[in-house]
Amino acid sequence: MINVGIVGATGYTGVELLRLLANHPEVSLQIITSRSESGKAVSELFPNLRGHIDLNFNEPDIEQLSACDVVFFATPHCVAMAMVPELIKRGTRVIDLSADFRLQDATQWEQWYNMPHSCPELLPQAIYGLPEVNREAIRNAQLIAVPGCYPTATQLGFLPLLEQGIIDPMHLIADAKSGVSGAGRKASIGSLLAESSENMTAYAVAGHRHLPEIEQGLRAACKQDVNLTFVPHLTPMIRGIHATLYGKLTKSIDLQALFEQRYADEPFVDVLPAGSHPETRSVRGSNICRIAIHQPQQSDTVVVLSVIDNLVKGASGQAVQNMNIMFGFDESLAINGIAVLP
Amino acid sequence: MINVGIVGATGYTGVELLRLLANHPEVSLQIITSRSESGKAVSELFPNLRGHIDLNFNEPDIEQLSACDVVFFATPHCVAMAMVPELIKRGTRVIDLSADFRLQDATQWEQWYNMPHSCPELLPQAIYGLPEVNREAIRNAQLIAVPGCYPTATQLGFLPLLEQGIIDPMHLIADAKSGVSGAGRKASIGSLLAESSENMTAYAVAGHRHLPEIEQGLRAACKQDVNLTFVPHLTPMIRGIHATLYGKLTKSIDLQALFEQRYADEPFVDVLPAGSHPETRSVRGSNICRIAIHQPQQSDTVVVLSVIDNLVKGASGQAVQNMNIMFGFDESLAINGIAVLP
Amino acid sequence: MINVGIVGATGYTGVELLRLLANHPEVSLQIITSRSESGKAVSELFPNLRGHIDLNFNEPDIEQLSACDVVFFATPHCVAMAMVPELIKRGTRVIDLSADFRLQDATQWEQWYNMPHSCPELLPQAIYGLPEVNREAIRNAQLIAVPGCYPTATQLGFLPLLEQGIIDPMHLIADAKSGVSGAGRKASIGSLLAESSENMTAYAVAGHRHLPEIEQGLRAACKQDVNLTFVPHLTPMIRGIHATLYGKLTKSIDLQALFEQRYADEPFVDVLPAGSHPETRSVRGSNICRIAIHQPQQSDTVVVLSVIDNLVKGASGQAVQNMNIMFGFDESLAINGIAVLP
Amino acid sequence: MINVGIVGATGYTGVELLRLLANHPEVSLQIITSRSESGKAVSELFPNLRGHIDLNFNEPDIEQLSACDVVFFATPHCVAMAMVPELIKRGTRVIDLSADFRLQDATQWEQWYNMPHSCPELLPQAIYGLPEVNREAIRNAQLIAVPGCYPTATQLGFLPLLEQGIIDPMHLIADAKSGVSGAGRKASIGSLLAESSENMTAYAVAGHRHLPEIEQGLRAACKQDVNLTFVPHLTPMIRGIHATLYGKLTKSIDLQALFEQRYADEPFVDVLPAGSHPETRSVRGSNICRIAIHQPQQSDTVVVLSVIDNLVKGASGQAVQNMNIMFGFDESLAINGIAVLP
Repeated sequence: MINVGIVGATGYTGVELLRLLANHPEVSLQIITSRSESGKAVSELFPNLRGHIDLNFNEPDIEQLSACDVVFFATPHCVAMAMVPELIKRGTRVIDLSADFRLQDATQWEQWYNMPHSCPELLPQAIYGLPEVNREAIRNAQLIAVPGCYPTATQLGFLPLLEQGIIDPMHLIADAKSGVSGAGRKASIGSLLAESSENMTAYAVAGHRHLPEIEQGLRAACKQDVNLTFVPHLTPMIRGIHATLYGKLTKSIDLQALFEQRYADEPFVDVLPAGSHPETRSVRGSNICRIAIHQPQQSDTVVVLSVIDNLVKGASGQAVQNMNIMFGFDESLAINGIAVLP
Repeated sequence: MINVGIVGATGYTGVELLRLLANHPEVSLQIITSRSESGKAVSELFPNLRGHIDLNFNEPDIEQLSACDVVFFATPHCVAMAMVPELIKRGTRVIDLSADFRLQDATQWEQWYNMPHSCPELLPQAIYGLPEVNREAIRNAQLIAVPGCYPTATQLGFLPLLEQGIIDPMHLIADAKSGVSGAGRKASIGSLLAESSENMTAYAVAGHRHLPEIEQGLRAACKQDVNLTFVPHLTPMIRGIHATLYGKLTKSIDLQALFEQRYADEPFVDVLPAGSHPETRSVRGSNICRIAIHQPQQSDTVVVLSVIDNLVKGASGQAVQNMNIMFGFDESLAINGIAVLP
Repeated sequence: MINVGIVGATGYTGVELLRLLANHPEVSLQIITSRSESGKAVSELFPNLRGHIDLNFNEPDIEQLSACDVVFFATPHCVAMAMVPELIKRGTRVIDLSADFRLQDATQWEQWYNMPHSCPELLPQAIYGLPEVNREAIRNAQLIAVPGCYPTATQLGFLPLLEQGIIDPMHLIADAKSGVSGAGRKASIGSLLAESSENMTAYAVAGHRHLPEIEQGLRAACKQDVNLTFVPHLTPMIRGIHATLYGKLTKSIDLQALFEQRYADEPFVDVLPAGSHPETRSVRGSNICRIAIHQPQQSDTVVVLSVIDNLVKGASGQAVQNMNIMFGFDESLAINGIAVLP
Repeated sequence: MINVGIVGATGYTGVELLRLLANHPEVSLQIITSRSESGKAVSELFPNLRGHIDLNFNEPDIEQLSACDVVFFATPHCVAMAMVPELIKRGTRVIDLSADFRLQDATQWEQWYNMPHSCPELLPQAIYGLPEVNREAIRNAQLIAVPGCYPTATQLGFLPLLEQGIIDPMHLIADAKSGVSGAGRKASIGSLLAESSENMTAYAVAGHRHLPEIEQGLRAACKQDVNLTFVPHLTPMIRGIHATLYGKLTKSIDLQALFEQRYADEPFVDVLPAGSHPETRSVRGSNICRIAIHQPQQSDTVVVLSVIDNLVKGASGQAVQNMNIMFGFDESLAINGIAVLP
């Protein structure tokens, strides 16, 4: 049993983290912080947690947090980096769901987030928490940067192809569709049901903050420079990401076998039979990434379909998966729930 | 560990039952039947179950079924009553999610379902599986009739008032709103997204088959005749029932206390604080019924708001709750999952 | 051709008013005001208007507004009452879509809106713009208070019954379901798609501001006091109100004939054949109110189903209907569009 | 005033055609046919048409149909080709919304539709009804093949680039997202709200029937062979197509100016300002195609975003646009309605 703290659990990744941890048999939730909701019962904000979590939100307190074995940050960017150095110094392990430690290059981070990074010295020791790539490093990590939602779906779809060098890394396209929970639990006109329901739109085509994160991961996979055109879209549903990935094949190979072998031992990547079309609802509420591979008309364009629940494998579920690895628990503990369908 | 069979698991209550039973530590799924899908892998029809259930659908076989400790029927009406007598004779316990054994009066059943009942002799021993009313009888039941979705939400909301005789049983109104999964997994134009999304409509105002079932339960609660106006509506969402109940108060009483006391020991009924408005999403995927009580403008009209997930507390979750009671398991085993929110 | 100004056209009733007026053959749009968006092209905020409306938002200017034949207010409450007295003084006619002039009793207004009314002296001359009740008064009105959305659907459903004195006015129930555009185009967490989609909930059961407005109208219809239990619900769709109305019959009468006769000459009230269930989508984008009447199980409870598009017959369409009457145009001009279905 | 007949108006393109034609000042609807609904009032099937269309469905009758000036076919494929030859022989003009005459190569048609084409001799005179390409040929056409929904959005987005030869025609990608009304008004489990809501999925990646139609149009535009990877997706909304198009630039050019000039005189193509993201809701119910052009990170990949309402510009609106051109009416007559937003 480990003691766990959560900083900033008032957003969607926060409530999802609470849903998963509330039933985790090795976790004792010690403190859940929120400056804005301090004093309020967690279950008052999130009535689905009534009867499952009895804690109140507290002001973040470094003493209480550092007494935990691990602290999750489910905060907007720039919050974690203000507290993480002290926690690390005190020996508390940190799993950060925000973007603060995802990019290894501080300059690049500052360019995309328009502000200075307050602890670039920690970037080298931050482990990018994609277990399918970094499982061994995660075991002993003190600081985990949980991948973003788009980056998870996109990297898992491209990795087998790039690792084997069978597509041109300079001509990658990721056309990604996300449910609106990806925009977070914050008041904004564009995310109102009356605005985003019965509607489909691309956004941030000129440049989305997940682009450098994805490119960093893809570069590492193929060990050379990459060029990705990344077009995110908003689709009128709450949860789910559907990434449709296009690559230009440079070699002929059994693509289905390649993916099946690459992910044979992965508990949370499910390669569907040839000819399949994964549905986001088949992973709703679950930590699974389902993938299908197509080569339409036998042309030289490979199409990979990759779906996740943006709040689970794309955020909180993956965070718990990291925690399970870090503390030697069964990797699937508390995150092997079955998708709720329909 | 008990052996379990399921007849007719190709609908929404079927897949939900499989989701719940797949992770039940005391259940060994032996056979899942479907005439139409016989031979197909269950996970091919329901991809959320990939990796969790490895069985194929089979033709229903009385030998295999009767070898189980309990058999669930997740079938349209008229299927269970053709097989149940033989199973009962052989000592297999039965939990029927369909309507076949819900009404104790065979004549009434035949009138509402427009066909003869093939085993009216079993009706007296069928236990109506609403644990909040019949828990003791359920323990030793051999045949359980799982309540319908509307009847569950409506009865749990009216029961405390009628049991205490504080509303006029001859002037009850239930205005109920259901997600479209209530119509079942069958091809019909009216349930297409293009027809039922961005739309709200009442239906079957002249008479819905759940009306006699509800009235039967309410009569039992107040031990006198009742008169209910029941208006079901279709609301553009997948899961959830919101029952808004109106009663005419005949006595003055602390309504909040009444409900809190009535359900104090119930694991799956949650009475919200005074002034609350329960949301169906707060029970999505969970077995909870959440209730709030209002008396607007202090008039003599009491308003009860009662929400459930129609596929869980309104069907498959309640079926498992019955099974847990029947076999002496913890009543919450495998059905204490937290609602997926958002 | 008349000159028209609009104050505050940045919300949903505003854009709907612009959609209707842009194609009105007798209207010349002179000025559209918004403090917050001043200077911006109207079509930049509302891209559906590109190519149809070339005006920019302006600061409200009393000179320009009073030069119009009529000025619409599509503003939150308390805005119109600050400008209307001056416009009225200068002879400009006003159609106010907000709540400022709907209640004839200033004290009651102040109680429900928690602020003083700045021009109670205008209340006696404000005409409540429900053409089915006040058509003659509307013709010569200088100040129109356009009814709220719930009040329109509810009054049109109850009026025939109350006018003829065949239901008990002291036991009225209105269970109303609204799409989320009713909450307006303003950032709020509760109206996010991620919060309000796949969800159904009641709200404001203790008291909604439309309650006194509805009661005022019903009192006028039956010329005696009324008691209404009004429970509004949020349903996961953009547009539409479905009001389910319950009354206790005190006389036996042909209800279908009653409604058909009452609305025989009304261009925008459509009484459906007996046994029907109106769908909100059948009026989406149109100015029609569709009504069906039921008497389930021949009990003494009458059920009226009344649907409107909350932004058209419940707001902007009704406002234009008032304008057409005021200026002697064909009452249907520019508002006889057919509902967009599916 | 022309006499118009419609064959097969019981689907979504049918009801949309009726909505548009009901208010067309130059059209007199003479006959609306449906074998399955013969005798029923059109407004009984489509209640939005109550008060606007008083006809009943009839059996198709060649005498009545050939007495019309023009007959629309809003039928599944293979229906039109059985009746069109006789109508053409009798001098009746035909506008076919189905796929029967879209492909000029009968062999290719038979390969994609798995059946023989019964009147290949008419294919050479069938005009592909995309006014932005074939306006002059449409004027005198006797037989119009109305383009499919995906083909309309995709061709309008690619045309300027291919006509000017500035992208590589052998590496085209169209990632298209459609609302579920594209699947038609027919009972199918996959299109149920409970299946397709809260879900995103690709389909028919191996080959969709619109692929050869699109390629045919693109080949004509660039006068050489093309290679298109076309991936359609189902998105949880009723109406709308969002086509995200990717091309590899072979020349440097002012893309914004190119598109603005190409469509400067087109009444139904709206090129948005640079940097825009068109929303499908901005064209909901309207005949407009809105387009935006991006060149992310100044790479050699151009991204075109093209949105239409699949039932209007993608079907019935475009059909009426063709009719207007054929009969010398104002091209926008009865189809210049403004999108309903929100």
